[in-house]
Amino acid sequence: MPLMVDLDRLRADIEALAMIGTISGRPGINRPSFSAEDMAGRRWFMARCAEAGLSPSMDVVGNVIARWEVGSGPPIMAGSHLDTVPDGGVYDGPLGTCAALEAVRVMQAAGITPARPIEVVATADEEGRFGGMLGSQALTGQVDPAWLERATDAEGVRLWDAMRAQGLAPERFPEVARPPGSVEAFLELHIEQGPVLEQAGLEIGVATGVSGCFNWTVTLTGVANHSGTTPMHLRHDAFAGLAAFAGRVPAIIEDVGGEQTRLTIGKVDLAPNFPHTIPGRATFSIIGRDTSEAVMRAVAEACRRELDQACRAHGLDLELREESWLAPVSLDAAIARTLEAESQKLGYRTTTMPSGAGHDAQTMQHLAPSGLIFVPSVGGISHAPEEHTPWPDVERGANLLLHGIMALATR
Amino acid sequence: MPLMVDLDRLRADIEALAMIGTISGRPGINRPSFSAEDMAGRRWFMARCAEAGLSPSMDVVGNVIARWEVGSGPPIMAGSHLDTVPDGGVYDGPLGTCAALEAVRVMQAAGITPARPIEVVATADEEGRFGGMLGSQALTGQVDPAWLERATDAEGVRLWDAMRAQGLAPERFPEVARPPGSVEAFLELHIEQGPVLEQAGLEIGVATGVSGCFNWTVTLTGVANHSGTTPMHLRHDAFAGLAAFAGRVPAIIEDVGGEQTRLTIGKVDLAPNFPHTIPGRATFSIIGRDTSEAVMRAVAEACRRELDQACRAHGLDLELREESWLAPVSLDAAIARTLEAESQKLGYRTTTMPSGAGHDAQTMQHLAPSGLIFVPSVGGISHAPEEHTPWPDVERGANLLLHGIMALATR
Repeated sequence: MPLMVDLDRLRADIEALAMIGTISGRPGINRPSFSAEDMAGRRWFMARCAEAGLSPSMDVVGNVIARWEVGSGPPIMAGSHLDTVPDGGVYDGPLGTCAALEAVRVMQAAGITPARPIEVVATADEEGRFGGMLGSQALTGQVDPAWLERATDAEGVRLWDAMRAQGLAPERFPEVARPPGSVEAFLELHIEQGPVLEQAGLEIGVATGVSGCFNWTVTLTGVANHSGTTPMHLRHDAFAGLAAFAGRVPAIIEDVGGEQTRLTIGKVDLAPNFPHTIPGRATFSIIGRDTSEAVMRAVAEACRRELDQACRAHGLDLELREESWLAPVSLDAAIARTLEAESQKLGYRTTTMPSGAGHDAQTMQHLAPSGLIFVPSVGGISHAPEEHTPWPDVERGANLLLHGIMALATR
Repeated sequence: MPLMVDLDRLRADIEALAMIGTISGRPGINRPSFSAEDMAGRRWFMARCAEAGLSPSMDVVGNVIARWEVGSGPPIMAGSHLDTVPDGGVYDGPLGTCAALEAVRVMQAAGITPARPIEVVATADEEGRFGGMLGSQALTGQVDPAWLERATDAEGVRLWDAMRAQGLAPERFPEVARPPGSVEAFLELHIEQGPVLEQAGLEIGVATGVSGCFNWTVTLTGVANHSGTTPMHLRHDAFAGLAAFAGRVPAIIEDVGGEQTRLTIGKVDLAPNFPHTIPGRATFSIIGRDTSEAVMRAVAEACRRELDQACRAHGLDLELREESWLAPVSLDAAIARTLEAESQKLGYRTTTMPSGAGHDAQTMQHLAPSGLIFVPSVGGISHAPEEHTPWPDVERGANLLLHGIMALATR
């Protein structure tokens, strides 16, 4: 019988964290990074680590690290984040953080002595409130000082000010960086935040990498005119141009994309946005993702061609701004194989898959071989109060994290 | 040499009215119906009528009527409205109102004695601030008392309160109604508000009717989800459904519509309207118009079919609310023939055409045979500060109104 986590204890931790950041009258969890609630969540987690006999500390950018001083050599790090999006769910972050602590508790109770130190980590600022992933970027030496200086949230609050208000020291971020070779491996357990595992009836997904992502803001400009007096063939209808482009999305994916390509038009703003007026301007987002940067480039190129074509057909001007271009990240293949093998030994219905969302593991991969375990999200829903993962799935994910840590710590 | 209007005098009137409702720092004209500026415009117009020797009066709903007591029998009415949309243009309304007064001045100066009385009319509340055309509806006995009671503008101001504040008496609207047979004919000169005349190099359009119009609010509901983690084939993307429908608009018109069909998606609101989230809800307007109600019905039916199809294809729920269904109105064919003949006698490049926009003439047609003359709108632009009609076109339109009145008044 393999070693197993104590689901009741893990569940109690996850449910306790869900009480921190609950606002009366709002269904979601609110621990935006560097808020008082976020810090309260971290302090609660430090206390839980101390109860387990670890010596937790918070670094100058807010990462909580609780080290089990055992064995020798570079440590295995395991964990996830504790901050949430506004009105977020219960599992996104706390699952992986609490499961890492639970893995240590189980090993300790079972009298297992790993060959390497284990560090339980609760990273800071993963959810992108300020546009980055400061906690894991600081750990891996990937902070851009210029960004740190100017970063603000959607309300204009400066990252710098938010951190100072919590007693943190953003200017000291270089102290946090771990030298290359100083970490043996990083493991993260996370909810999938998508419907793939649930739809396929699978229990565990081992991530092979994280999709790259381009983010465009496109403006099509035509002529706003009276909807009754302007014949169809004399229109320069910005929305008709957008619809023509949007109608080509399946063809773009079929022609130059692949199974992992995602193209999303999530935000659309028309002007004047009045029923009786032909739209003179359409501003919209295009988010393109793929696990291959070559495919991303081909999809982006095809989008440009189709936008040009829609503009020619509808007599529109095109303005395209690339907000960001993030290359795909491959996670460590050997660790993925280890996790897959451990999952199969535990009897879980397992697949490998790319991650469509960003995670700390992709940042940590720059420092150390990293692995990422997914458990199913009901309905694929995340970043919302309805986010849910059944407890048996939580248990399977935590068991795999435990056995992954043990496999790596005894290598 | 046919009788001609005095363009300088007409232009001075139109330009004087454009000074009333000008707000510092805003380029457009603002005389929304029953505002102080609207009433000031009407009082200025009454004074100009009085200077011409007419006896103007304002009725209880705000219509200004200046009667030239001459000849016998039912009068010829001629005019247009004086209220404007917010930030509207110079010509929409004042052109036809001032040209009717100018026609009377020219006839008087030329010593012409019409066989019938002439009434110059400046109707109230044509632009639909409160959702109707109260002035001409009251004159023609088409006011719905329930609507009058509850009508509000976009800011929630009650029509009733706005009228009372100006000393008008909405409850006395029945006094304004003219009995059937008491008006010989109604003539209106208006800018086209569309690009058809300009594009065709024509000078005068004689309207044969006014298109009918249906106004739908459609809501497609899918599932908002993470744009990175949700594969394309597992999405319920409300915007993709809208785009699929919008892409079918040309086919709908080709299949069941005609040359006069207009289908416009002018207003689109997505939720949550966030770049990284698949749209869970798309709410949008469909405005459909045609000169044939049978075609309108076929187009509406085809829209429903295509919406159903888009919802099936994208796994969406459909909610469709019909805000209004206005049947097309045919204007008087004999008057249109008279206007066309007079225009050709004056040497103007003339066409007949339907009107895509609503006008007082369509309401007046319920009471008396009515005619509607169009002059070109530069770029088809209207309801905007850029609305423009060159003075030679204004002159031609006013000359045709003059000769139309003379032709009808001597019948």
